[in-house]
Amino acid sequence: MQINSSHSRLCDPAAKYDAFPKVHLPHRKWPNKSLTKPPRWLPTDLRDGNQSLVQPMDSDTKLRFFQALVKLGYKEIEVSYPSSSQTDFDFTKRLIETPNITPDDVCIQVMSPCREELIRQTVSSVLGAKKVTIHIYLATAECFRRVVFNMTEGETLDLAVRSAKLVRELTKDSQDPAAQSTEWMLELTPEVFQDTPLEFALRLCEAVKAAWEPTVDLPIIFNLPATVEMAMPNVFADQIECFCESISEREKVCVSLHSHNDRGCAVAATEMAQLAGADRVEGCLFGNGERTGNVDLITLALNLYTQGIHPGVNFSDINSIISIFEESTKIPVHVRAPYVGKYVFCTFTGAHQDAIRKGYKHQESTRAQKWKMPYIPLDPQDLGREHEAIIRVNSQSGKSGSAWLVKEAFHVDLPRDLEVHFSQVVQTHADILGDEVTLQTISNLFQTHYMLKTYTDLELLDCKIYSKLDILLQEGQSQDLQSGISKVYLNVHMHAIEDNTPMFRVRGQALPKYGLRCKRFSVP
Amino acid sequence: MQINSSHSRLCDPAAKYDAFPKVHLPHRKWPNKSLTKPPRWLPTDLRDGNQSLVQPMDSDTKLRFFQALVKLGYKEIEVSYPSSSQTDFDFTKRLIETPNITPDDVCIQVMSPCREELIRQTVSSVLGAKKVTIHIYLATAECFRRVVFNMTEGETLDLAVRSAKLVRELTKDSQDPAAQSTEWMLELTPEVFQDTPLEFALRLCEAVKAAWEPTVDLPIIFNLPATVEMAMPNVFADQIECFCESISEREKVCVSLHSHNDRGCAVAATEMAQLAGADRVEGCLFGNGERTGNVDLITLALNLYTQGIHPGVNFSDINSIISIFEESTKIPVHVRAPYVGKYVFCTFTGAHQDAIRKGYKHQESTRAQKWKMPYIPLDPQDLGREHEAIIRVNSQSGKSGSAWLVKEAFHVDLPRDLEVHFSQVVQTHADILGDEVTLQTISNLFQTHYMLKTYTDLELLDCKIYSKLDILLQEGQSQDLQSGISKVYLNVHMHAIEDNTPMFRVRGQALPKYGLRCKRFSVP
Repeated sequence: MQINSSHSRLCDPAAKYDAFPKVHLPHRKWPNKSLTKPPRWLPTDLRDGNQSLVQPMDSDTKLRFFQALVKLGYKEIEVSYPSSSQTDFDFTKRLIETPNITPDDVCIQVMSPCREELIRQTVSSVLGAKKVTIHIYLATAECFRRVVFNMTEGETLDLAVRSAKLVRELTKDSQDPAAQSTEWMLELTPEVFQDTPLEFALRLCEAVKAAWEPTVDLPIIFNLPATVEMAMPNVFADQIECFCESISEREKVCVSLHSHNDRGCAVAATEMAQLAGADRVEGCLFGNGERTGNVDLITLALNLYTQGIHPGVNFSDINSIISIFEESTKIPVHVRAPYVGKYVFCTFTGAHQDAIRKGYKHQESTRAQKWKMPYIPLDPQDLGREHEAIIRVNSQSGKSGSAWLVKEAFHVDLPRDLEVHFSQVVQTHADILGDEVTLQTISNLFQTHYMLKTYTDLELLDCKIYSKLDILLQEGQSQDLQSGISKVYLNVHMHAIEDNTPMFRVRGQALPKYGLRCKRFSVP
Repeated sequence: MQINSSHSRLCDPAAKYDAFPKVHLPHRKWPNKSLTKPPRWLPTDLRDGNQSLVQPMDSDTKLRFFQALVKLGYKEIEVSYPSSSQTDFDFTKRLIETPNITPDDVCIQVMSPCREELIRQTVSSVLGAKKVTIHIYLATAECFRRVVFNMTEGETLDLAVRSAKLVRELTKDSQDPAAQSTEWMLELTPEVFQDTPLEFALRLCEAVKAAWEPTVDLPIIFNLPATVEMAMPNVFADQIECFCESISEREKVCVSLHSHNDRGCAVAATEMAQLAGADRVEGCLFGNGERTGNVDLITLALNLYTQGIHPGVNFSDINSIISIFEESTKIPVHVRAPYVGKYVFCTFTGAHQDAIRKGYKHQESTRAQKWKMPYIPLDPQDLGREHEAIIRVNSQSGKSGSAWLVKEAFHVDLPRDLEVHFSQVVQTHADILGDEVTLQTISNLFQTHYMLKTYTDLELLDCKIYSKLDILLQEGQSQDLQSGISKVYLNVHMHAIEDNTPMFRVRGQALPKYGLRCKRFSVP
């Protein structure tokens, strides 16, 4: 199937690939706008996400995922493509017929191509549900319309209108009592919107709108996908602004986005298209989906969150969502995935570690309400990542990293000269090891180099208690017979983290858990 | 270190996070522009990328990676932070002192903080190189400047100018013969540019430019990082346009970008900032780098390529780059990473498979020069992904998927009714299996259901040879004693892929390798 030799093509890509045409929109408004509220969300993990998996989810796995989506706060969920397989059809019925699975305020969405028998099958799968969106799609982009379906624009438009009328007949106009108890919405996807002439997309949407007759309360959803991401996000935003400005009865229309990530810009495209007027966003958790995936709903939500906007969904227990996702899809979350990756809230670099450490100290000392932390745009605790190893140490790390871990291990703030000395100890070790230096290793190195072998060596001469938690050790002395050094420990500020557990206690009481033997760091 | 309970914060993110301020730029020009050429590239895999790894690369690994970058066509490469570790210092010297490693037209970049002793150490590491960029950085954003370094704007500006003067004294003004044979460039990074008041960033850059005195041939590089991505890409583009329009002697300035991916928008931000005037892009292959990573240089390059613009670097053997990367960083390339992920050029969905199959047929039959393939924005062969399993089959797949794989296995185009029948066979199998159906399984299923047990069953009555490769079998007959069906095979177009290997041969010669026993699909 090789058409041309790749190497010759690579030299002259213009011979093989055309630039995506610009949209003429000199007075565009979207770049002057900001996001101020979340969109209507629609996770399609169970449809678009599921159909992209090597091993599609079975019914129980889909159910567990559905319940996780409900718990996160999603109110519209695409659950299946019922006409594609018995599994999907049965799963849809299961959601509706099993008591207490689908909350009354959650709208179930099911997808069907514009084919009569498949639409009938699709509607029959959701009878009895409280709220349903029937999502029909057809090809409007020339490449799809002509090459795949061999249809004219006129035939395509007719098919869309006929399909919308059929859905209407089977749902909101139906005399079947099972259909009458349901709140029905219609979603139409002209595929690939991004590559469809805007004039044709509008003409088709207007005709379908007239056939469906939406209301302000239950607007028709026009889902405008970048099924394949073909252009820069600003171009897509221009297209969406054009559509939003041109469609009639805008108040009866919900403009929805469905972006894929082929150019790595799905998040940006979705955000900018919201500036351009879109109301609703379809996507998947962790950017699952065909090929490069659908837009990542978690990144979108947390991007809003870090701008002070409540996304309307709750990711305060991100680790459990990661587990459900990885078990269901068999796809690992990448270590660098925004907000959720394993390495996202950690740093190995000396300069970064120093800045973060100072940032935390500053935040503590000023008791600032606002989060303003170098290198960490979101407090990991807000995602339930409480025990994050923010600072990790290897040969690239400086003194701050080691000092941070000593504090983790011993709840001790090192004096600066001890920091410097200890970081050389760690650096030497890391250079030889060529790997990460773990908390356990740091702890061992610190104990070996500085800590008393026996606690009776330490005699505390004076101690001033500033508060229940803070003890300033004014002067200490030990008899370390091995080293022959007697003046060992001075003026180190101890900060005990746990309540009522001062790290050092005064003479005559219990001896300290850890004693510092800082023979090289005596202070006058 | 917990400041506030995460759950209460999550309800009111505005109490903890401020929205990033908008840039007032009503007459912005960048949204009307398109990318027409590649930027100057600077991979920083060996510096920013390397310092983000659990296990930093050793010298040999760095060397192998450097050579891969050179082979890809990069002409500026950041190789180290020489003052941070002996490994980095020695590696830098190794690149310069080992013959035939660094081509004369490749500029080596090394990074240093604005500290005198470290700048001296940095310059000493690159003496003897043909082309060098000394990259100095300092904190200009308020959060960093005040909290981390406790410096005023004035002190920061003085430090930047003093540092630039020191670099100048040690490099292009040096009397040392070792320095005089080098072409020196200066790069200044005001960190975090995105969060620095534009007025201050400009004032500082103007002062450093005056101290360095760049030329049109060797402009000064102002690298404007989104060290942490804090705003939407359009806001960043506004900032870059403001900078580009305001800096004096624009022809002596190279505006460089260095974006991280904290909001998942680094690619978009980098592309839009180029529309806004930036000339140069720093990033890493596969989006490696601290936390969420640096911008992905491969996605950027191939985004240009698919618009018909040669990126100036060559990814025609992507698999070998994936191997080098994964071995060097121990970080796997994600299965959905744009252009490079394992799943990026494959689909499991029936509708997609059908479209792709028709697209390939259309492309073959029209011998189109331009690539226009449903769901596949880039010909995988251009990346050297020649044997890609574009279509993979599971329970979500339709008839096209199975038919595609039959063609892969037997070089046979199935007639439509056989396609339909066989897809039901596969679907049933996939539903039971709940997993991907491999090429081998498809092949076995097809053989079991349709193929003759013995070749002597087939008698070829008429055969017309159209070309060496195409044989149209007009009519066939077999004696299948088990089924009692005699008229088995009619009018199927056979297409043999390999030269001189027609699938069927005429009576009297060798019998066909495979015979179709389509008892249910006889044609009148």
